[in-house]
Amino acid sequence: MLKSISSTKKSYLAGFLDADGSIYVQAKPNKTYRFGFQVAPYIVFYQSHKDAKSFHRVCSLTKLGHKRLRKDGIVEHIISKQEEIISFIGLVEPYVIMKKSQIALLKRIISLKKKVKTRKDFKQLINVIDQFRELNYSKKRKKRTLTP
Amino acid sequence: MLKSISSTKKSYLAGFLDADGSIYVQAKPNKTYRFGFQVAPYIVFYQSHKDAKSFHRVCSLTKLGHKRLRKDGIVEHIISKQEEIISFIGLVEPYVIMKKSQIALLKRIISLKKKVKTRKDFKQLINVIDQFRELNYSKKRKKRTLTP
Repeated sequence: MLKSISSTKKSYLAGFLDADGSIYVQAKPNKTYRFGFQVAPYIVFYQSHKDAKSFHRVCSLTKLGHKRLRKDGIVEHIISKQEEIISFIGLVEPYVIMKKSQIALLKRIISLKKKVKTRKDFKQLINVIDQFRELNYSKKRKKRTLTP
Repeated sequence: MLKSISSTKKSYLAGFLDADGSIYVQAKPNKTYRFGFQVAPYIVFYQSHKDAKSFHRVCSLTKLGHKRLRKDGIVEHIISKQEEIISFIGLVEPYVIMKKSQIALLKRIISLKKKVKTRKDFKQLINVIDQFRELNYSKKRKKRTLTP
């Protein structure tokens, strides 16, 4: 559920996202999906477990997402449900400064994903997803074989 | 000079500071100072040089601080002039969630620093500065010998 929050809280979250957050989409091999891949968008925040308590106060500004403690002591706050991602973007988008392109690309992918009908559509979606590598300066390029 | 900025910009900066910023005070050995140490407060933001352009847009929201490119490719935006630190705190303090204690301690140090008259006062100031190590989870503890 989306809590109604003030514009200063929204812009606070936008600053937090710009400084520390990560926006990306994974195409994960999964045979139960029609074209052999699950398209999974993410918005993730990271803080040390030492600051878990105050980090929790930040993450509780919305009811979106869930927490995960990594083995290296980093707490991740992960928003991965598509409807929650759309809600979160709706809150922060007007205030975001640094991650405008990532948000635009994420929105484009979610919209394309809904329209996928053919294998060609899906291939195009995967190509758009690959643009995240450039935006996020990821060096890895993946070769993907779609289920025929 | 301090630009007048909106409350959503101030809270954006508070979010950015909470997520990515660092607040600390150094007591640097310096023989030209009365008790042998220069007390230097800092508010620093860090981003990859790859995002330098959009990071610059964030840092330009105020006219406070200066940039430095580190050898490891990190751009630091450093606010170190005492008057600028006070101005910056004035902007973000009402909106900060995670770094409330660091801001309170920084303010206390700046206030104590102004009142230092005796060696005892200075020793007390140094003790208060050392509380930052705990707040920032720094493991290093320093032994300091004041100029007699």
